[in-house]
Amino acid sequence: VKHGYHPLHRNKKSGASHGPEEIAEFIRELVAGNVPDYQAAAWLMAVNFVGLDPDETVELTKAIVDSGNTASYQDLPGPVVDKHSTGGVGDKVTLVLLPILAAMGMYIPKHSGRALGFTGGTIDKLESIPGFDAFPSEERFREIVRDVGFAIGGQSESMCPADGILYALRDATSTVNETGLIAASVMSKKIAGGAEHILIDVKVGQGAFMKDEASARELAERLVYVGTNLGRNVRCLITRMSQPLGRTVGNELELYETVECLTGNGPDDVMEICRASAIELCKMCGIAGASEAGLKFDEAVASGAAIERFRRFVEAHGGSTRWIDGDERLPETENVIVLKYDEKDAFIQSIDALAIGEIVRRMGGGRLTKDDSINHSVGVEFLKKPGDKIETGDILAKIYTRSMNPGDLISDVRAAFEFSETKPEIPELIIDRV
Amino acid sequence: VKHGYHPLHRNKKSGASHGPEEIAEFIRELVAGNVPDYQAAAWLMAVNFVGLDPDETVELTKAIVDSGNTASYQDLPGPVVDKHSTGGVGDKVTLVLLPILAAMGMYIPKHSGRALGFTGGTIDKLESIPGFDAFPSEERFREIVRDVGFAIGGQSESMCPADGILYALRDATSTVNETGLIAASVMSKKIAGGAEHILIDVKVGQGAFMKDEASARELAERLVYVGTNLGRNVRCLITRMSQPLGRTVGNELELYETVECLTGNGPDDVMEICRASAIELCKMCGIAGASEAGLKFDEAVASGAAIERFRRFVEAHGGSTRWIDGDERLPETENVIVLKYDEKDAFIQSIDALAIGEIVRRMGGGRLTKDDSINHSVGVEFLKKPGDKIETGDILAKIYTRSMNPGDLISDVRAAFEFSETKPEIPELIIDRV
Repeated sequence: VKHGYHPLHRNKKSGASHGPEEIAEFIRELVAGNVPDYQAAAWLMAVNFVGLDPDETVELTKAIVDSGNTASYQDLPGPVVDKHSTGGVGDKVTLVLLPILAAMGMYIPKHSGRALGFTGGTIDKLESIPGFDAFPSEERFREIVRDVGFAIGGQSESMCPADGILYALRDATSTVNETGLIAASVMSKKIAGGAEHILIDVKVGQGAFMKDEASARELAERLVYVGTNLGRNVRCLITRMSQPLGRTVGNELELYETVECLTGNGPDDVMEICRASAIELCKMCGIAGASEAGLKFDEAVASGAAIERFRRFVEAHGGSTRWIDGDERLPETENVIVLKYDEKDAFIQSIDALAIGEIVRRMGGGRLTKDDSINHSVGVEFLKKPGDKIETGDILAKIYTRSMNPGDLISDVRAAFEFSETKPEIPELIIDRV
Repeated sequence: VKHGYHPLHRNKKSGASHGPEEIAEFIRELVAGNVPDYQAAAWLMAVNFVGLDPDETVELTKAIVDSGNTASYQDLPGPVVDKHSTGGVGDKVTLVLLPILAAMGMYIPKHSGRALGFTGGTIDKLESIPGFDAFPSEERFREIVRDVGFAIGGQSESMCPADGILYALRDATSTVNETGLIAASVMSKKIAGGAEHILIDVKVGQGAFMKDEASARELAERLVYVGTNLGRNVRCLITRMSQPLGRTVGNELELYETVECLTGNGPDDVMEICRASAIELCKMCGIAGASEAGLKFDEAVASGAAIERFRRFVEAHGGSTRWIDGDERLPETENVIVLKYDEKDAFIQSIDALAIGEIVRRMGGGRLTKDDSINHSVGVEFLKKPGDKIETGDILAKIYTRSMNPGDLISDVRAAFEFSETKPEIPELIIDRV
């Protein structure tokens, strides 16, 4: 143990606010390898207790952006936007929303991480597709954005390298959930990515990272403050994540559901968030008011423009599109277990998003550590959703598994359902706009 | 960054109390090298905010003791005692007190660290003596204790290895000042050292580690709680450390002052703390009541028994004793700068212990980092102390320096003095007994 470079941990421990140059220097030295791990860890834990104030968060975000390359898309003939979700169970909104936005005239250069989550991230879902290249060259990525309207690529290592270092340490020291650290991690990557208008879906509830509305709201306000202070146009939706989103949880299953959404057969909840997001982004970049934007959204789906954009996007990334039309299937699981309802007629009150997420992860559909590999084909499909009436013998869900011994799977998925004799009130999905 | 062994940092971060086995396992794995630095650092910072409760402190102390060897002196024909000070400017109490205690019939196997302080620790002071071996073999150390009544050795690496690892990390992550961590560090070494009766001098004030009485009292109570729960007889004195203790600050200078104390010419403050400590220890091990103990203390000094013990101790450790009688000088500095008082007659109100400590450290008399070497001969000697009347032309202090360019030394030492037209009230040195 040698004395390290920067007294940031000492200053934060004593409750101080860091100055801009103090933070910039710390991040520069961290990326240069001059800050010992244990001092950065001590700083993170001190931040966990003392917090980062909004201006410190702006400076940290700026320093992380400055630690690597940044992209710029000012040469494109339409508004450049980005969209991020803090993540939830069954969240395939990016895959559905981006083709629609592109069909509406926006450009979306989207970078996505391989999050540790219940299912893989957007990149993992796309890698279910044979041939799909989620890491095209920077030049090719820009070409796809220009030609198709959007591209989705893995996080480039040359962007925000400081975020990777900090995230690994946060993950290993139980310091992932401080508002300022989360906001800086999210916003730095969005800002480096080059979009001018940024919409962030802050999910709240048992199936989300933020468990209560107060902390979701705090994060949303921080994200807007940071983005605005760094010259971007940022808004947040706060949306409920207590039920799984849509009808599927699992990488391949969610791809198929994406196609259903883009051909007008999507479930209400996914489409509601996509529509609200599209309207918000239209207002932000000034291409349409709320009612006109809603009509444009509906038209993009109904006209087939959205699914056409999705098909071109998959092709541009080198992926097969035959599965989109049903001419071939993505690799299938050996076993599909059907869960039937065997009690008296009732309504579905709720489905526990957290429990379902954990089941899918346990089946191999998500990662616990970065080095875990993903099993793309496993997952759960819901044939009934909260609010639906059910009768004895109805199929509640299908469980897609590679295990020949499903063990407790059926009873675990069954236990995630709650039933009610009367039709339940389903709370609003979109809680607020910040 | 790999995932580490133990979730202790996560549990403490969430405010939990650790169970005994949880702490024991963490310390075992730490010493085995299975806990990554950054996770131990995150734990320390979490402890800094959440704190260790008294029972956690007991368990941590026990785990640190169990991480290495322990000594036992049950074969000695008298009570085995130990004494520790949390450290202050000019604190040479150990050097004065131990020969007196030995002359009074106690045995003191004393281990001492090379603290980062304003001057070196006790070991550094003793190493000013030509030939002095502060790291005798364990066998030789025990022999000296038996023959002379006391020995002073550097901290053995085989005792409490976990403390060394934790201390280095605490030092590097600004987490040295949590009561439980301090208490466990101090008490583990005292318990492993084998003494049954342990007296700790908790110093408080600007020149001490603990700056206010409340935190000094909290530490004292914690030390007693931990020691008592681990089967030792522990008491604390809380003593004031706002003025330098005694007339000298500096390694060699304090050795000479030790001889003055042991021959009846010591300054009041040092002798008061030594006398109170001896009385307390006599009561603790039941060899004398308060008034009888005071008489025995006075007699040990007046009879020459104490200085005789000191001489035998230095000899036993291989050190020269010619300097004790003035037959040779310890290596001297090239420069002695005399600071004279040049204003109208007054009283000394105070001398800033912290300022003096920093001056001596800056001259090379103490360490800022573990790898710094010590300059034994530099220091400051006070010819006048708080409460003394002074006249124009009186010598206030002598500054012993190796630098040919004393620069701001004189004005800095001068600035540490405060004067008063009226005789000041000198506050009680011994604040409380716990």
